[in-house]
Amino acid sequence: MSNCAEIRILAIEGIGEIQPGDCLAETLIDAIERAHLQLREGDILVVKHKVVSKAEGRVVSLQEVQPSDKAKEWATRFQLDSQVIELALRQSKRIVRQQEGVLITETSHGLVCANSGVDVSNLNGGSSAALLPENPDRSAVKLHLALNHRLQLSIPVIISDSFGRAWREGLCEVAIGVAGLIPLRDYRGKRDRYGYQLHATVEAVADELACAAGLICGKLNNTPACIIRGFGFEPGNGRASDVIRPASRDLFR
Amino acid sequence: MSNCAEIRILAIEGIGEIQPGDCLAETLIDAIERAHLQLREGDILVVKHKVVSKAEGRVVSLQEVQPSDKAKEWATRFQLDSQVIELALRQSKRIVRQQEGVLITETSHGLVCANSGVDVSNLNGGSSAALLPENPDRSAVKLHLALNHRLQLSIPVIISDSFGRAWREGLCEVAIGVAGLIPLRDYRGKRDRYGYQLHATVEAVADELACAAGLICGKLNNTPACIIRGFGFEPGNGRASDVIRPASRDLFR
Repeated sequence: MSNCAEIRILAIEGIGEIQPGDCLAETLIDAIERAHLQLREGDILVVKHKVVSKAEGRVVSLQEVQPSDKAKEWATRFQLDSQVIELALRQSKRIVRQQEGVLITETSHGLVCANSGVDVSNLNGGSSAALLPENPDRSAVKLHLALNHRLQLSIPVIISDSFGRAWREGLCEVAIGVAGLIPLRDYRGKRDRYGYQLHATVEAVADELACAAGLICGKLNNTPACIIRGFGFEPGNGRASDVIRPASRDLFR
Repeated sequence: MSNCAEIRILAIEGIGEIQPGDCLAETLIDAIERAHLQLREGDILVVKHKVVSKAEGRVVSLQEVQPSDKAKEWATRFQLDSQVIELALRQSKRIVRQQEGVLITETSHGLVCANSGVDVSNLNGGSSAALLPENPDRSAVKLHLALNHRLQLSIPVIISDSFGRAWREGLCEVAIGVAGLIPLRDYRGKRDRYGYQLHATVEAVADELACAAGLICGKLNNTPACIIRGFGFEPGNGRASDVIRPASRDLFR
């Protein structure tokens, strides 16, 4: 047996279908028990945003969405779904890029992502779309408190979504909701073992945790949540909104 | 015991100081043995680029760098190290943004990052800077083959560095060198359990693996490598350069 540090990422399988109004804490605790897992002090719970959106009723029937001319024109031009584009535009505060069929927006939360995070997969075959939770940080706090209430444990919660990036291909998970931990680890002022003082290093640990979770949750695994065990997080009232770079300091908006 | 899926991230501690010319495969295998770990088929090895740069002699004494007037002017204006800026400019193919003391470049490899990845931390207290490996994909292949030769195991290798992002605060690890696995998991054309066909989902698993590794390697842990066990990667001759979005399709360059 090694005595080196280890982090474990434990899939919570068998969560089943989430309905609007479901108590997510209850559902997750049940699934964790059925999977013969157990939450412990020091664990982090990562939940894909879609189950949060489902539980919060943030799922829209596309049939009921009346697309604007603007949405229709863009959708037709690039063979996209005009109702999805309409929702994306409605959920956006500002359009960051609209080129070659790619629509990158700033959402009401300040998140910069494709189609305002509106997504049709893993719902019901294409007739509905999920919106991001109205306030994912608040959703994370609610789940964090509910777990605390039921288990008498302080389990940090991360709500994640997969976003595209500038400069790089493919999606990576990011933390869009956080409760119970500090999402950015600030190394500034600390010294390495050679005495050199770091002056710019801030690590986005919440996003790295979301990515680690993404490895086990996948896109088609029906595993929308996992437990991360063994990561030395900094407990506290951090928020995912802390990870959003203010527009005034952003060189790419 | 749960029978759910699990991924483990195992720190390789006690690697010690890397010297130019060191055989990294040898050094890592020794450290893995001393740590009572064992590489197994299915494991992935993630290595921070700095040990690769050290082994490859990509460390420059700052005293020997003669900064240009351009580097000096910029450095003075924002209280930066003119020698580091000079190296960053020399390592760049193109400047992507140069504003408010932030220098974001496209490196010779096509990577977009701050200061062309030139970094002074974890070296020798501030008198030297590490450049990125000349060809990190080639370095990864070399290590992958050397492990194969010594252990008769095909262990995928990821070489990682921490990069800043557009829109978000903090650094996350990214894969700058890859060997033995496909870095992008393409879900396009696959159907979710409701029959909906995914049409845009490509997951940057190599970057998510790098992030997972970042959680255990940290910035000041003297743990520049780890083993990721239990992730169902797609074996193959993928390259980290596959994850770089071509400039022609990039909306943020």
